[in-house]
Amino acid sequence: MPGNGNAMRIGHGYDLHRLRPQPGVGFCLGGFFVHCDYAVIAHSDGDVLCHAVIDSLLGALALGDIGAHFPPSEERWRNANSLEMLRSVYCTQIQTQGYRLVNLDCTVILEKIRLRPLIDDIRSHLLGAFESSEATDINQISVKAKTKEGVDAVGRGEAIEVYASCLLQKR
Amino acid sequence: MPGNGNAMRIGHGYDLHRLRPQPGVGFCLGGFFVHCDYAVIAHSDGDVLCHAVIDSLLGALALGDIGAHFPPSEERWRNANSLEMLRSVYCTQIQTQGYRLVNLDCTVILEKIRLRPLIDDIRSHLLGAFESSEATDINQISVKAKTKEGVDAVGRGEAIEVYASCLLQKR
Amino acid sequence: MPGNGNAMRIGHGYDLHRLRPQPGVGFCLGGFFVHCDYAVIAHSDGDVLCHAVIDSLLGALALGDIGAHFPPSEERWRNANSLEMLRSVYCTQIQTQGYRLVNLDCTVILEKIRLRPLIDDIRSHLLGAFESSEATDINQISVKAKTKEGVDAVGRGEAIEVYASCLLQKR
Repeated sequence: MPGNGNAMRIGHGYDLHRLRPQPGVGFCLGGFFVHCDYAVIAHSDGDVLCHAVIDSLLGALALGDIGAHFPPSEERWRNANSLEMLRSVYCTQIQTQGYRLVNLDCTVILEKIRLRPLIDDIRSHLLGAFESSEATDINQISVKAKTKEGVDAVGRGEAIEVYASCLLQKR
Repeated sequence: MPGNGNAMRIGHGYDLHRLRPQPGVGFCLGGFFVHCDYAVIAHSDGDVLCHAVIDSLLGALALGDIGAHFPPSEERWRNANSLEMLRSVYCTQIQTQGYRLVNLDCTVILEKIRLRPLIDDIRSHLLGAFESSEATDINQISVKAKTKEGVDAVGRGEAIEVYASCLLQKR
Repeated sequence: MPGNGNAMRIGHGYDLHRLRPQPGVGFCLGGFFVHCDYAVIAHSDGDVLCHAVIDSLLGALALGDIGAHFPPSEERWRNANSLEMLRSVYCTQIQTQGYRLVNLDCTVILEKIRLRPLIDDIRSHLLGAFESSEATDINQISVKAKTKEGVDAVGRGEAIEVYASCLLQKR
């Protein structure tokens, strides 16, 4: 019975962007602006958390990936607001197919910037993308902070990466 | 009630292989041959996508890993067809225990070779490993393409890596 | 109906620690002591497997991360027993909220030390953290071994990393 089999779906997203030191610039994570002395090198607003979450949602329903939906080659996505892109994907791709978010668990790996004090603000902003007629609650949105212990590009502070896992359920 | 608790299972697979520039050689991804000027350095056919998917399936039911089932030290697995290995694992390890695939979400991270135009062909070939008496549909098979923005071994084009997440359900 | 939506939860954890060659020292993985000529560089006992599993459990219920629950800045967590930390998180954070483990699938990426012969011992020790009034079975605990094929910090034997995925279910 395919209906039963499609009742739940798992999705996994990954994204990485390079960082460069740039005093006072900062970047967005989950739609929340992180004040810091780094800038993200990206075509869009470089919100690596939103991008990984978008990929996990699209992946759960086998709808392609963020690059297929928002081609970096198209001028209209330059400096696009990634939280709006996420909201759009959730509304027009996920909910219209009858699915809703059960929960989302993300890990942000980043060196040199202390994220933990900002985590609840980041979660609140990210939650904003899932608000709709059906209530999504903050306890369905997890963001965790890690470092890479000084190794590889992320460990040297040259990049930020995010893993996002989601569980969707058919209404 | 353990029966209830075992009704669904989550699996996670990871694989990485090194690449070397080699004009006209190419490699397999999900059983689909990618024409390009790189070769995969591997004992088997080096199909990193099939390998990650196999590990996610085995992991979901705690049946060990690909290295335990197909030891690279055994000559009979040299240049083994990984899509056949995947088909075999799904038939003889997963389905015989009464489980079936709900959905599969993979992320291939690769530099220099544009995968997106090939994604649907890759998905179709991968789907072939799940064909059986029970219908598995292409919308249960997701493959997403990413780059590593030039950083680390994958970013320099020296390796290809894949994350695979699967959800299984007991019939 | 939120009750229905919260019946299952997915979690994803990641951890990495640096290694240094140190004859005869060894380190813990899932509470099992791995005899080898490497030491883990860490504040706690450096059990990267337990840490990733803890993060996956906390993440599934959006309860923060290991760094928030066990701050490395606090002296009492110095050389803490990570298996006990995991047991404590499962008992006091997960079970008290009415959730139980459906299954856990981990991938340990490590070079130079052959883990496969030790995997079942590692799984058995890890299982110990989930023992309670409700039976958790060894077939719900998966640990897989990979190498990173010589690339990046893990591939050079300078670090060990773990991915952990879990599925929880409300009783």
